[in-house]
Amino acid sequence: MSSSLIDGQPGASVPIDDRGLLYGDHLFETIAFHQGQAPLWNRHWRRLVHGCGILGMDPPSEQIALTECQSAAGSSDSRVVRITLTRGSGGKAYWPDPDQPVRRIVQARRWPDGLAAARKDGLNLVTSRVRLASGSVLAGLKHGNRLEQVLAARDCAEQGGDEALLYDNLDRLVEAIASNLLLVIDQQCVTPLADSGVAGVGLEWLMDQAETDIVAAAISHRDAARASAVMVINSVTGIRPGRSLDGRPLDIGEPCRFMQQLWTRRLNSPCDS
Amino acid sequence: MSSSLIDGQPGASVPIDDRGLLYGDHLFETIAFHQGQAPLWNRHWRRLVHGCGILGMDPPSEQIALTECQSAAGSSDSRVVRITLTRGSGGKAYWPDPDQPVRRIVQARRWPDGLAAARKDGLNLVTSRVRLASGSVLAGLKHGNRLEQVLAARDCAEQGGDEALLYDNLDRLVEAIASNLLLVIDQQCVTPLADSGVAGVGLEWLMDQAETDIVAAAISHRDAARASAVMVINSVTGIRPGRSLDGRPLDIGEPCRFMQQLWTRRLNSPCDS
Repeated sequence: MSSSLIDGQPGASVPIDDRGLLYGDHLFETIAFHQGQAPLWNRHWRRLVHGCGILGMDPPSEQIALTECQSAAGSSDSRVVRITLTRGSGGKAYWPDPDQPVRRIVQARRWPDGLAAARKDGLNLVTSRVRLASGSVLAGLKHGNRLEQVLAARDCAEQGGDEALLYDNLDRLVEAIASNLLLVIDQQCVTPLADSGVAGVGLEWLMDQAETDIVAAAISHRDAARASAVMVINSVTGIRPGRSLDGRPLDIGEPCRFMQQLWTRRLNSPCDS
Repeated sequence: MSSSLIDGQPGASVPIDDRGLLYGDHLFETIAFHQGQAPLWNRHWRRLVHGCGILGMDPPSEQIALTECQSAAGSSDSRVVRITLTRGSGGKAYWPDPDQPVRRIVQARRWPDGLAAARKDGLNLVTSRVRLASGSVLAGLKHGNRLEQVLAARDCAEQGGDEALLYDNLDRLVEAIASNLLLVIDQQCVTPLADSGVAGVGLEWLMDQAETDIVAAAISHRDAARASAVMVINSVTGIRPGRSLDGRPLDIGEPCRFMQQLWTRRLNSPCDS
């Protein structure tokens, strides 16, 4: 077992001509593993392969990718494994070499601290002052162009928040910095509909459960100001409620606790109990 | 002299936890050096420092950066030097460590082939089928999030073009894939005005010359269809005229030849003659 692999070999560095570094020309997934198993693997893998299609990269075999992720994760506890597929080295500036094989980078990180407390007591949410661009051809993908999120994270820290609600330049709520969002508005669970942001694996799983009733709709600032509850959804960190939004107290009510129980029961995350 | 330097030391790889690789969390400049001198250095450096301000990174000293670029460029002929400033390693996912020093990566490439022919005979231009997102907080910067340009380059190659005109999702012309644009419309030299794209150093230089008369204005598909000439401007490749746009022949007329002469005379690119 090695905690980082590059094209299947232990390694911890990439050449400076890697296109992932030069241009953000890559896709990645950040995957929860518990005792060597990733309950959401199929959804992560599907998104990654979909992204490869959009970007015009050949994905590796699923078996190779899974084996490498499991090797990095180990079998004894919970780990977060990031798999990155870059377009490798080559091409002529932005113009890629169509025959260049992708470079696989697999890295394991320890399980994040403080998740149980965040799920129980909630997050201090703020409205980001960073606006996302709209109408992105990359919408939905988990790609390597994440500078907007880095700027939003800096802004969130400056505001003293734990996570932030991100709007696009047309005042449409999109997502949180590293998560998707669910808002309870007029007793209805709503997730933002927009033409940017990441199609989150955790949110997708939640929407597919028969017991949940979630609709996707455009959400403006004014809509969000009426929300009684906000939930922050991420495939690794699970469902974390907001306890406040820009200082206004939020409910951590029944819908959140119900979905958290569903998540824990079905997605097997023992280390958060 | 070494052709690649990392934080001033010869090197050709970076750690896999570099934020430039993980998130495209970096800025770069691609700079023409002739016999160890970069005629547009001041403008490149100004844009890089401006970008550091937006991203919240501390730039290195100008003298250190210039010395390293000159070391990579050598003193005998023409080279293209890329300097990249990543946010280094560290932080917690998108949340950067505010105290993390930047990582400097300096790489030299040989001077591109075929520039003289392209400047004389012109490029085959196509309209990109890739639309840029609009309203980006990163507008103007030369940052590491270039997946839109990679997708546009793939599309351009599929269409058999040399370069492409990129519009945003609101039908506003923005730029070419790796260049800025000048169009001659109704005898006026116009560069596109939009809220995305890179504020090009070569274009800026050209607009600042007393002999040129260039205005910035919104340009739609319909406007571009009326253009008699199109010029593709890049600080390294200079001024390359379009010889056709989507199969429609373009003029390579007097404004282009005049600006090319100005460029050659003042920016000292002997290897293209």
